[in-house]
Amino acid sequence: MAYFNGVPQINFEGAKSSNPLAFKYYNPQEVIAGKTMEEHLRFSIAYWHTFTHEGSDPFGTGTMQRPWDQYTGMDKAKARVEAAFELFEKLNAPFFAFHDRDIAPEGATLQETNKNLDIIVAMIKNYLKTSKTKLLWNTANMFTHPRFLHGAATTCNADVFAYCAAQVKKALEIGKELEAENYVFWGGREGYVTLLNTDMKLELDNLARFFHMAVDYAKEIGFTGQFLIEPKPKEPTKHQYDFDAQTAMAFLRAYDLQDYFKMNIEANHATLAGHTFQHELRISRINGMLGSVDANQGDMLLGWDTDEFPTDLYETTLAMYEILQNGGLGKGGLNFDAKPRRESFEPEDLFYAHIAGMDTFARGLKVAARLVEDRVFESIVKERYKSFSEGIGRDIVSGKADFHTLELHALHNKPIVNKSGRQEQLKGLLNQYLLEM
Amino acid sequence: MAYFNGVPQINFEGAKSSNPLAFKYYNPQEVIAGKTMEEHLRFSIAYWHTFTHEGSDPFGTGTMQRPWDQYTGMDKAKARVEAAFELFEKLNAPFFAFHDRDIAPEGATLQETNKNLDIIVAMIKNYLKTSKTKLLWNTANMFTHPRFLHGAATTCNADVFAYCAAQVKKALEIGKELEAENYVFWGGREGYVTLLNTDMKLELDNLARFFHMAVDYAKEIGFTGQFLIEPKPKEPTKHQYDFDAQTAMAFLRAYDLQDYFKMNIEANHATLAGHTFQHELRISRINGMLGSVDANQGDMLLGWDTDEFPTDLYETTLAMYEILQNGGLGKGGLNFDAKPRRESFEPEDLFYAHIAGMDTFARGLKVAARLVEDRVFESIVKERYKSFSEGIGRDIVSGKADFHTLELHALHNKPIVNKSGRQEQLKGLLNQYLLEM
Amino acid sequence: MAYFNGVPQINFEGAKSSNPLAFKYYNPQEVIAGKTMEEHLRFSIAYWHTFTHEGSDPFGTGTMQRPWDQYTGMDKAKARVEAAFELFEKLNAPFFAFHDRDIAPEGATLQETNKNLDIIVAMIKNYLKTSKTKLLWNTANMFTHPRFLHGAATTCNADVFAYCAAQVKKALEIGKELEAENYVFWGGREGYVTLLNTDMKLELDNLARFFHMAVDYAKEIGFTGQFLIEPKPKEPTKHQYDFDAQTAMAFLRAYDLQDYFKMNIEANHATLAGHTFQHELRISRINGMLGSVDANQGDMLLGWDTDEFPTDLYETTLAMYEILQNGGLGKGGLNFDAKPRRESFEPEDLFYAHIAGMDTFARGLKVAARLVEDRVFESIVKERYKSFSEGIGRDIVSGKADFHTLELHALHNKPIVNKSGRQEQLKGLLNQYLLEM
Amino acid sequence: MAYFNGVPQINFEGAKSSNPLAFKYYNPQEVIAGKTMEEHLRFSIAYWHTFTHEGSDPFGTGTMQRPWDQYTGMDKAKARVEAAFELFEKLNAPFFAFHDRDIAPEGATLQETNKNLDIIVAMIKNYLKTSKTKLLWNTANMFTHPRFLHGAATTCNADVFAYCAAQVKKALEIGKELEAENYVFWGGREGYVTLLNTDMKLELDNLARFFHMAVDYAKEIGFTGQFLIEPKPKEPTKHQYDFDAQTAMAFLRAYDLQDYFKMNIEANHATLAGHTFQHELRISRINGMLGSVDANQGDMLLGWDTDEFPTDLYETTLAMYEILQNGGLGKGGLNFDAKPRRESFEPEDLFYAHIAGMDTFARGLKVAARLVEDRVFESIVKERYKSFSEGIGRDIVSGKADFHTLELHALHNKPIVNKSGRQEQLKGLLNQYLLEM
Ligand SMILES: [Co+2]
Ligand SMILES: [Co+2]
Ligand SMILES: [Co+2]
Ligand SMILES: [Co+2]
Ligand SMILES: [Co+2]
Ligand SMILES: [Co+2]
Ligand SMILES: [Co+2]
Ligand SMILES: [Co+2]
Repeated sequence: MAYFNGVPQINFEGAKSSNPLAFKYYNPQEVIAGKTMEEHLRFSIAYWHTFTHEGSDPFGTGTMQRPWDQYTGMDKAKARVEAAFELFEKLNAPFFAFHDRDIAPEGATLQETNKNLDIIVAMIKNYLKTSKTKLLWNTANMFTHPRFLHGAATTCNADVFAYCAAQVKKALEIGKELEAENYVFWGGREGYVTLLNTDMKLELDNLARFFHMAVDYAKEIGFTGQFLIEPKPKEPTKHQYDFDAQTAMAFLRAYDLQDYFKMNIEANHATLAGHTFQHELRISRINGMLGSVDANQGDMLLGWDTDEFPTDLYETTLAMYEILQNGGLGKGGLNFDAKPRRESFEPEDLFYAHIAGMDTFARGLKVAARLVEDRVFESIVKERYKSFSEGIGRDIVSGKADFHTLELHALHNKPIVNKSGRQEQLKGLLNQYLLEM
Repeated sequence: MAYFNGVPQINFEGAKSSNPLAFKYYNPQEVIAGKTMEEHLRFSIAYWHTFTHEGSDPFGTGTMQRPWDQYTGMDKAKARVEAAFELFEKLNAPFFAFHDRDIAPEGATLQETNKNLDIIVAMIKNYLKTSKTKLLWNTANMFTHPRFLHGAATTCNADVFAYCAAQVKKALEIGKELEAENYVFWGGREGYVTLLNTDMKLELDNLARFFHMAVDYAKEIGFTGQFLIEPKPKEPTKHQYDFDAQTAMAFLRAYDLQDYFKMNIEANHATLAGHTFQHELRISRINGMLGSVDANQGDMLLGWDTDEFPTDLYETTLAMYEILQNGGLGKGGLNFDAKPRRESFEPEDLFYAHIAGMDTFARGLKVAARLVEDRVFESIVKERYKSFSEGIGRDIVSGKADFHTLELHALHNKPIVNKSGRQEQLKGLLNQYLLEM
Repeated sequence: MAYFNGVPQINFEGAKSSNPLAFKYYNPQEVIAGKTMEEHLRFSIAYWHTFTHEGSDPFGTGTMQRPWDQYTGMDKAKARVEAAFELFEKLNAPFFAFHDRDIAPEGATLQETNKNLDIIVAMIKNYLKTSKTKLLWNTANMFTHPRFLHGAATTCNADVFAYCAAQVKKALEIGKELEAENYVFWGGREGYVTLLNTDMKLELDNLARFFHMAVDYAKEIGFTGQFLIEPKPKEPTKHQYDFDAQTAMAFLRAYDLQDYFKMNIEANHATLAGHTFQHELRISRINGMLGSVDANQGDMLLGWDTDEFPTDLYETTLAMYEILQNGGLGKGGLNFDAKPRRESFEPEDLFYAHIAGMDTFARGLKVAARLVEDRVFESIVKERYKSFSEGIGRDIVSGKADFHTLELHALHNKPIVNKSGRQEQLKGLLNQYLLEM
Repeated sequence: MAYFNGVPQINFEGAKSSNPLAFKYYNPQEVIAGKTMEEHLRFSIAYWHTFTHEGSDPFGTGTMQRPWDQYTGMDKAKARVEAAFELFEKLNAPFFAFHDRDIAPEGATLQETNKNLDIIVAMIKNYLKTSKTKLLWNTANMFTHPRFLHGAATTCNADVFAYCAAQVKKALEIGKELEAENYVFWGGREGYVTLLNTDMKLELDNLARFFHMAVDYAKEIGFTGQFLIEPKPKEPTKHQYDFDAQTAMAFLRAYDLQDYFKMNIEANHATLAGHTFQHELRISRINGMLGSVDANQGDMLLGWDTDEFPTDLYETTLAMYEILQNGGLGKGGLNFDAKPRRESFEPEDLFYAHIAGMDTFARGLKVAARLVEDRVFESIVKERYKSFSEGIGRDIVSGKADFHTLELHALHNKPIVNKSGRQEQLKGLLNQYLLEM
């Protein structure tokens, strides 16, 4: 059965096309810097926003019109799987991602919930046999149900901790079964609402215990996907423990977990934390911790997670620049953790939105690849820091210098001369690259 | 010679006093929880805001009327020292803190600059012999002069790195000479203005090299003060490397520096980074990294560092609560990194401002001590997390549990029951403690 | 039937009481500055947060445990009315407020919806005969249902505009029937999501048309309640037309509506717009437009409307200061547009939360009244601006001066002397008043 | 004498040029939609940022290397005029703008200050005779000097008010003398630092008195330039009275000044106030109040006025879209109220920065003109709101409908049907226009 009857296969038609249901920039087989666009970009569809989000907001109920609205319960869950693989195929999407509760409804007991999961997982596995689309990552939703209101692994209630362990155990088994390339932890409730009633030390210790158990269990069952932490500063909690990439890294190092995890960087979470998207990618990259990306964008004038589809060419260009410098994302991908606006409620909007996101990243990739090829920023950086490749600078970098030798240098040095950082010129140059690909 | 002729010794007169030049709550010798207020609070006067800040802002020139305005150069520097010790005495301040360039003007050469420093340091040392006021910390100003425009230890110019090394070397010698209890690094220019021209990896590596050299040199000369990092997210840079406490800790751990540094937490920097003051104190405390405090406050509707005197009783109460839980600040103190508003330009305002700050912290201390004594939050926390001290919770904490035993527990557990977090009741209780000391 | 069996009548027990179900500061019959506390404060219970809010957030479903959860449909609506008047009585609340859809469920047709309303309105009317609690205001919910996704009176769909007219017509009739003292417009969807598809001029013209029709209809039916606009900058829309008080006033003046409306100032909306609560009260007050107050508070580090119960003594003191200067709120009141946190899900939390809010405002009132009585700020202001009551200043204020006379004055004036604004001293003084009532 | 010897005349070389000292998109004589680019864009150079800004920030002293640094006092002022007209010519700039204190130093007395002004004004007037560059606007700097610390026209000191009157009187005379097309009021100190000591009502009344006097004096001397208010929410004040466009309009209407003023919209001030640049342009436009533009951009992650050169193509495109819809800016222009970063301190950076800004706006103009020509958004809007051009919608707009007729319509209407807002598709379309000009 088809769910998106009005929507044809989405093909690449080029920049001059006025067909709203065609790619203008994303040409999957086009080779850029030695790899196809598809290999570079590794796009992933987010199951939750695309197949379960209903369009509610804090002041309004759902608006989304979905072709599976006629079904309920497990029938709805099955219809969503069918619709999902139709959409994956029509968008030619190489990956998807889901939470356990996205794909199957919770039952009356954990046993029943797991049985629901088993049915849908089997159905997905069957699809995966013939589909080109693969599972980028799965995860456990430990934030929607009221049981998690005080946290999941950082709850004050040991029964909840145990429940979460059972849930992640199952999710890892599913990840192995469906050959997920990664496993993501986003700790939506792992934080606090007020410090007045919070034992932060115990909560963080427990979070580390939980992660160690997950690492152990993955080894035990032979799940080889990459573990990822997705930082976010707040929302729904007042303050989330994985505030940003550096906070997550501080935590991982404090609890000797740094070898088992990388970062899943979301653009909108970066800006909510006061960083640019590029900053979070860069700091993860230079720490060897850039794992995957939740490709979306926020609204810089709104203080919450808007999860918009990425349409800002500056952001996608600079993101792809960091990813190219990282040698790609490895097992990671660009997962559209993004939803059409509540006012874009028609099924076609799902396609318009993904097309916009994929085209914007495709153009970003091309611009970034050209910037790398022309060594635009590399040559500027090389020249700018060249004093560290000679003389006293080389001594500093090589470890030969100390405060004595440096003081001597400073006392007898000629007057210091700095050079302009040329930010304005660089921004003009970036525009030229953006426009003149 | 006296500089503040119109200002008498500031004494404690009690809460009913209407004398603006008296303490209402700060009674230095009053014993709270086994120590005097003075011992608990360890107030410090910031030399820069108090003796060199002129009251300029980005759109206006200086407004401050200071009794040493008639002097210039080294004469002004000497007058400031005299005025400083007069103010310390009148406020009965146990500590002060300074940057090298606060106390002595820069000369034509580094040699001359150091000579200026030597003269003033000798003068201060002389005062210290008889004054009760001690040096909480000193530091090097590596942000005001244009030479630092691209950074200090994270500059792109090796000559600047060397200059900074010479400057910190000298500052550590001064710290030793004046028996400073700490040495602070605030990296005002240690960050970037645009990623387009920045080699973040080299800059961070260099910052770590610099810190290691400082640690080595301190050992060499026998300087035993505590090294402190003062995080700040931005301003003047677009993005500062020591964004917040967790970021600084991630960096320290990445470069094996964690044993040599603690945090100097500034309230206004905390809020600029998106955290409460209490959060930064708490996260530092539970990591064993709470060293000292820059006691001020920001304006939550202004996006820059306003460095206001701390007058919010909630903030000082919760800060003192964390400090009491930490067993005090050790070598650290409460340094008023705060300035009177540009519109409070008369010399007396320096006293009104410090009185307001000291009284607000004194009251905060008393409320916090009472909260601790009555185990108000402790008993709530103990009850709230008690499931981790028995049964499956104890197994989790002790390391006996794994995903298998936890799944078994979850599958056969009775329905999960959570309890209210009672935030509103706790806030009402906090108000009652605040008002009814 | 009783719904809150575990909760006794809430009485005033004084500041030393440790009974969590008692008032510590709110003593309704205590006379402050010539009126009882009850007359000053005019507290109102918000029906939506207290009786219909389920505790969902953007990442989680409802958590609230409510004694009427067993019912559905109109039975639930009736149970809520019963519970409401029980709570009003136990809290001794003089007022309440509701949206049409809070009190009665929407039916299959507008006719049926109105019939549901009629039944509940009759029931409420019956309660009002014997209850001391009165209706502060009612309003129409024109934001929750999907039909309003593009706006209500500012929709792009004329059918929706008509629907809203029918809804407000009915709501005004209800207001008249229940003798509401005000009628509030909060335009949750009156704004835009993107300018790319928005005819802002037509939308604003239509909003004005809608308001004029409402004014006309109120006259027609003899509804004499005060019309109020409740500004909010954003959420759920990207940008709401009534951004803040001044924006609403600009709109009212542009469309000749200024004589028919006043402001309903919400603290959390003020801060979301970049203003203090006091600012919005002040600017409304001096424009003769301060009508009523939604008494809550936001979290300054969170970028959305948290609608917390007001527990900050600074905020309530300064709010009551403005209200006292306004000669009270007239027909308006202090409506607790506030909800217990999602984690405070037990029925008792509704009482703890209201007690905290009422006590905090009661203390604020007492401090503010004392500040007014002692003319603390008045005398400072009088002295500060006294140059405008004499000489050239008097000429300016009286209209006698012009650029010629002022230039003459400036050219021949002695050097200008300003005086300190004394902000720090004033803040210390405010603390003293806060603590030493 | 030439000041920018290393800089040639800046010519248009087209999008493929790699010459950093050439325009890639700004081709002054190219005709777009019936007018030349030069006529559309009306670029203006800001004297302050370009000729007097020294590159200081709150933590650092000046860095800018300027060819007139060798001079002081009036010699420096004269050198700046010479350099200014050299730069205007090399950039082919049609306009410039200044504050009184930018062009001439303050003397010991107001008389002397005015004499300094007279000398420089005469010199500028001489240049204007032969230069193609004209004066877009001038204004009075009433914020830098300490005398303005409590405000200018909203001061608490009548002597300061008089001083300001004398200063604006002189500035209007200069405007007339130099044939300025506008006169701008930016009230940098017209606001408050704390409400505790502020008589807001008197201050706003005085501001209105001041504006009326200015209007009267302009009439008296026959100055026919357009008066402009430049809103800004804060900085340097805690809260500025002209917070945003709507606030300024509310004020103007309250004091019957609306016929004499338009808005000067600055991009960075818009975002500091919580609005997009386009929002402020749109709301001004539909109120007939769009006068001129300060063309810059802010950093959305920094909470202060960064005054960066505009390099974001989205912003310039949407700005030019509003300006085209406005039928152009009339007497207004695009004034680069922007400064090179402190790290871009070489004289050439002034040219790189202006080139980047001019090119970005030129491209924005071309994209916007094409969007208008193709009626991209117009046709979407027309279709979206078409229900208001027929049936009940037409009755609403024409004034025929009231609550009775609308209720009837609603009660008997068929179910309401809304259509998708298509935001994601529109953003994809905007990208296509941006890239495929
Ligand atoms: Co995400
Ligand atoms: Co998100
Ligand atoms: Co500090
Ligand atoms: Co600070
Ligand atoms: Co409200
Ligand atoms: Co609200
Ligand atoms: Co401007
Ligand atoms: Co600006």
